[in-house]
Amino acid sequence: MSVNTFGRVLRYTTWGESHGPGLGAVIDGCPPGLPLNERYIQPFMDARKPGQNRFTTQRKEADLVKILSGVFYNADGEQVTTGTPIHLMIENTDQRSKDYSEIAQSYRPGHADYTYDAKYGIRDYRGGGRSSARETAARVAAGAVARLIIPEVRITAYVCELGGDTIDHEAINLDEIGNNPFFCPDSWAAKRWEDLVEKARKDGSSLGAVVECVAEGVPAGWGAPVYGKLDSDLASAMMSINATKGVEIGDGFGAARLTGEQNADAMSPGKNGKPVYASNHAGGTAGGISTGQPVVCRVAFKPTSSILTPVDSINTAGEATKVRTKGRHDPCVGIRGTPVVEAMMALVLADHKMLHRAQVGGE
Amino acid sequence: MSVNTFGRVLRYTTWGESHGPGLGAVIDGCPPGLPLNERYIQPFMDARKPGQNRFTTQRKEADLVKILSGVFYNADGEQVTTGTPIHLMIENTDQRSKDYSEIAQSYRPGHADYTYDAKYGIRDYRGGGRSSARETAARVAAGAVARLIIPEVRITAYVCELGGDTIDHEAINLDEIGNNPFFCPDSWAAKRWEDLVEKARKDGSSLGAVVECVAEGVPAGWGAPVYGKLDSDLASAMMSINATKGVEIGDGFGAARLTGEQNADAMSPGKNGKPVYASNHAGGTAGGISTGQPVVCRVAFKPTSSILTPVDSINTAGEATKVRTKGRHDPCVGIRGTPVVEAMMALVLADHKMLHRAQVGGE
Amino acid sequence: MSVNTFGRVLRYTTWGESHGPGLGAVIDGCPPGLPLNERYIQPFMDARKPGQNRFTTQRKEADLVKILSGVFYNADGEQVTTGTPIHLMIENTDQRSKDYSEIAQSYRPGHADYTYDAKYGIRDYRGGGRSSARETAARVAAGAVARLIIPEVRITAYVCELGGDTIDHEAINLDEIGNNPFFCPDSWAAKRWEDLVEKARKDGSSLGAVVECVAEGVPAGWGAPVYGKLDSDLASAMMSINATKGVEIGDGFGAARLTGEQNADAMSPGKNGKPVYASNHAGGTAGGISTGQPVVCRVAFKPTSSILTPVDSINTAGEATKVRTKGRHDPCVGIRGTPVVEAMMALVLADHKMLHRAQVGGE
Amino acid sequence: MSVNTFGRVLRYTTWGESHGPGLGAVIDGCPPGLPLNERYIQPFMDARKPGQNRFTTQRKEADLVKILSGVFYNADGEQVTTGTPIHLMIENTDQRSKDYSEIAQSYRPGHADYTYDAKYGIRDYRGGGRSSARETAARVAAGAVARLIIPEVRITAYVCELGGDTIDHEAINLDEIGNNPFFCPDSWAAKRWEDLVEKARKDGSSLGAVVECVAEGVPAGWGAPVYGKLDSDLASAMMSINATKGVEIGDGFGAARLTGEQNADAMSPGKNGKPVYASNHAGGTAGGISTGQPVVCRVAFKPTSSILTPVDSINTAGEATKVRTKGRHDPCVGIRGTPVVEAMMALVLADHKMLHRAQVGGE
Repeated sequence: MSVNTFGRVLRYTTWGESHGPGLGAVIDGCPPGLPLNERYIQPFMDARKPGQNRFTTQRKEADLVKILSGVFYNADGEQVTTGTPIHLMIENTDQRSKDYSEIAQSYRPGHADYTYDAKYGIRDYRGGGRSSARETAARVAAGAVARLIIPEVRITAYVCELGGDTIDHEAINLDEIGNNPFFCPDSWAAKRWEDLVEKARKDGSSLGAVVECVAEGVPAGWGAPVYGKLDSDLASAMMSINATKGVEIGDGFGAARLTGEQNADAMSPGKNGKPVYASNHAGGTAGGISTGQPVVCRVAFKPTSSILTPVDSINTAGEATKVRTKGRHDPCVGIRGTPVVEAMMALVLADHKMLHRAQVGGE
Repeated sequence: MSVNTFGRVLRYTTWGESHGPGLGAVIDGCPPGLPLNERYIQPFMDARKPGQNRFTTQRKEADLVKILSGVFYNADGEQVTTGTPIHLMIENTDQRSKDYSEIAQSYRPGHADYTYDAKYGIRDYRGGGRSSARETAARVAAGAVARLIIPEVRITAYVCELGGDTIDHEAINLDEIGNNPFFCPDSWAAKRWEDLVEKARKDGSSLGAVVECVAEGVPAGWGAPVYGKLDSDLASAMMSINATKGVEIGDGFGAARLTGEQNADAMSPGKNGKPVYASNHAGGTAGGISTGQPVVCRVAFKPTSSILTPVDSINTAGEATKVRTKGRHDPCVGIRGTPVVEAMMALVLADHKMLHRAQVGGE
Repeated sequence: MSVNTFGRVLRYTTWGESHGPGLGAVIDGCPPGLPLNERYIQPFMDARKPGQNRFTTQRKEADLVKILSGVFYNADGEQVTTGTPIHLMIENTDQRSKDYSEIAQSYRPGHADYTYDAKYGIRDYRGGGRSSARETAARVAAGAVARLIIPEVRITAYVCELGGDTIDHEAINLDEIGNNPFFCPDSWAAKRWEDLVEKARKDGSSLGAVVECVAEGVPAGWGAPVYGKLDSDLASAMMSINATKGVEIGDGFGAARLTGEQNADAMSPGKNGKPVYASNHAGGTAGGISTGQPVVCRVAFKPTSSILTPVDSINTAGEATKVRTKGRHDPCVGIRGTPVVEAMMALVLADHKMLHRAQVGGE
Repeated sequence: MSVNTFGRVLRYTTWGESHGPGLGAVIDGCPPGLPLNERYIQPFMDARKPGQNRFTTQRKEADLVKILSGVFYNADGEQVTTGTPIHLMIENTDQRSKDYSEIAQSYRPGHADYTYDAKYGIRDYRGGGRSSARETAARVAAGAVARLIIPEVRITAYVCELGGDTIDHEAINLDEIGNNPFFCPDSWAAKRWEDLVEKARKDGSSLGAVVECVAEGVPAGWGAPVYGKLDSDLASAMMSINATKGVEIGDGFGAARLTGEQNADAMSPGKNGKPVYASNHAGGTAGGISTGQPVVCRVAFKPTSSILTPVDSINTAGEATKVRTKGRHDPCVGIRGTPVVEAMMALVLADHKMLHRAQVGGE
């Protein structure tokens, strides 16, 4: 079962609730000898952490990661992984001691309030408890460790659509991603989104987004038939992120509108007998195994369910009520989902590199 | 690892290649006492089986399922499951003894030929070997068993888009699905598709499709945070089907273009304290757990990669060549993917029903 | 893989090293609604904790367990499990800041020093790092949670042999177990063992022991063929405890010396159609499934490897050296292993109760 | 769950009942390129197969293995593994069409008859169904594949005690194992056992046995803390074999009677910096990881439960009855368990070699 664990050979388990003392990830199976310290992880956390600008939630969390096990000093005095479980822990520091009585008694539409109660008969309602996107902080920390296993791969995620407004793929400039609060690689789109998000925030509304993630440097041969397909594991990984409703590999739903000729990624001889591809409709996989092209996936995030506009709902007694979610929320949860998508890509690829090594050998 | 196994508590493993002696599924964890015999399974196989009309591959396979273990006679003389592994086996009967030398030596673009060689250094090239969609016959058989576990659920899949031509959702009539060769619930669309597919077939081209699947009767409470989300397992299941490139739950990518107000599924009091929902943008899940609404997902199938138009490729020696895939192929692989989507939905839901029972109890 | 995780449906993962900041267990899959707080767990910890008398190691650890997730207040204001991951954390407080240079450079025979280096190329040598029996504190905490799932079962473990001196099974009085520092149910044997252990301690030597564990109240039907046998999972659980070298179910190796007639556990009709057994050579299982009799297993602990007598060994440079393990050690590690054996029994039984419920249903 | 599956990275699943059409093993994760054909497997089957002499059951089974998937011809025309699931199938041919009414209605003590009914409410009573030792034929076939993965390891199992009569360990001659029907490495003991087994057979009684298994050539570093210990996985593997009641690693229960000094395996410098050990009390593992010494384990088999002497029992209606098991049975099931122990050792070691490779790399 292990429903709070992800991975096949490199496996990590997360624990923690939004307003409990903290949260964490225990990573099992990490190779030994990789340089790992808290300083290395922190920038990944900072990219996701809340409260950094007016376009995200105002909850302030330092998201400092403590490494509580699984590292030791090598002969050179560097902290490296030892091959034993790595526990990464993050304390919660800005849980507002506000009155939760309203949310305790009524179900917020679009949230997991009702379903948790229906399943478990009890829920930690404070800030969404286990169903809060705060859990993704642990994923980002785990993803930072996963990246150490796949130094040959370069992963980049960015928002490619926000509130229905798409970027110009011709205008993509990856250097722009860090220059705006939207992880947007198109500076013109970023400008437009400022207004979009600002308006949604002021209106107490929210917006959806699509995040695109590209992994370059993945060699041909990672992935496995037929239930361990790279596509399958990526889909599972992305759909486990809060607020996601869709996943595409390569052209995705667009491929369903192409003919066989249009969709064919023609090959020609390249260096070392490796193919050169004329296109990448497939998004870097065939038969669930990497082709040597960039692995490309896209993830749809619904608009944040927490909005100020009152919505009809029921309370825990089954009576009609109206719910208006106050508190600090992201007007577009897809934005801060971007580093999480990157982390999940890293975790899936690292896992499959190791799985491949188990079966076929190699360094 | 178990990359050829799917499921958490109800687990099944498939084996077999397209042109080997046969294929099968071993189902582990099935509850005892469920009535199961070969006659029951066969109609599900027949829905998927090839060679039934001119819109699918002309390979003829009876797809007769033999139950080789895991059933026995109860006191009433009925064959029922015993709780031990159920092995469902299907013999291959129509493997053409044609010359495979061409496909043995060159890589068909869009197929797994190159990636299998890159990974394993060897592949059974006959008909695609393990990467053939023939493997899905075993899934359909396993799915039939899964349905026995969830009698409260009614699963229906249909093609909702073919070659870029979508059905009219207002005109959906589920009774129509069996009246045309496309699993199409819109009789007008089915008419149009006849021409589309016929043309593609004659041109030696192929088309993509989108399959929609609806599961009614799922109670609130199935699924589990955070890596065992119903959405996550459905995404994994669907993306493991051959030729799939995208998965959506509920409004999917469309949800990314809605505002929070538009996307909110308002609740009002219903019977027994259960909510009545004003809409189902979420597709029947919240926080990865079923809401009590129909579970809805959509799956994108790319156009069949096997086309008669020659495409640039390379051979196993790394030299340039042109590949033109002769042989018997589906002009639109998404059509016969429909019963497979249904089967995967059944397998995921049965698994989560059992998982729920493990943790929370109940019949 | 998940080599630091145990269980099938109820799964827990431990992390932590002997001299790191702490250790813990993340329990996944626990049913909701079970009353759980730190006060409840502590007595189980106290039974295992070091430094309580002169017959165990003098390291002082409070072994206070903090519950960091997975519990919340129910309507009655009680802390109960919520069905989400339960993280139990124990801080290390008495790691001696001694000089580890000796142990860092040489391999202690019987310890994992050499094998960790051979495997990982690095090890946290402080107090044995991950290979320290300190890890078992996390198991005892997890075991306390497992007990909540199986209130119908009463588990009792005791030392039945120490330094080759066995108890008189006729004289077993379970009330005696808490009256001596050896978990010994035979007061006469306990007297003799005082001298035995005292002598070993003074000599800088160490002794082995055998722990017997009996679980009463297990209904017929838990366990599963063929690799999920109750016997198989118990064997795995017990052999994962530090310093164990053997496991027996029922008569164990003694059964190999009986004839079929002697070994047969004759049945006669009991209440509610359940059998009454004339004997329990089988130790409560048949075909890997519980029979309704007490489940009985025995676990052999080797003598503590850390002894004062110098032993020939090699250092990390591969040169000859002599190792004499100073520091604080249990003269007989089997004694404090007793609560760990109990915990593992609880974890295996709770897991199988839930597994049974998944497949067959029931509360 | 996967209770009919064994292994971590190399995983196999068995299916089949004693008197059904056949049984088999599906092996997932096997490395590609290993030479595998039916001829290679058969000798391993022959060592276990019944009906070969008067000391084992008279059921005649050819135990011919068919490879139904996962192999293909390499460039040299040899059949090799392809990395996809290998299905090994064995047809049942000598299921006696006798009257099963007696066994159908009453529970044989020591058998799984009662427990299967208690668990599942139904059982295939013919020949014990799934609980029959016939399932081990599939293990032996899978074990033959596992051996291909670990060519550096030489595994030998033999009976070291039969009916309470032990071999002389000084007199062990491995060449003798094949010279007698008992897998006995001591020719004198083999002579004595002829009389013992013959007498038990004539009396309609049965005997227990202990099988010892030694794996030479295992490098230091296989295995993993703390729930994936080599010891733990071996214990689980051996305890899953029918009729086993105990497992020891190295000195096992004997180690519990040694002092720390006696039990210490002193090390001295050997070639390439590897240690030379003065003894092997540990049985080749420390901290769950191989030391480089031979891995040694011992497995206790109870006497065959099927005996001619009537034993008190109950029937399915819960009434008193007497059971006398006619039919063809091994007077000592431990004998034919010997090749099964070897197979399980091979499966565990191959699994851990691959697991090690996943984490640490290497060929």
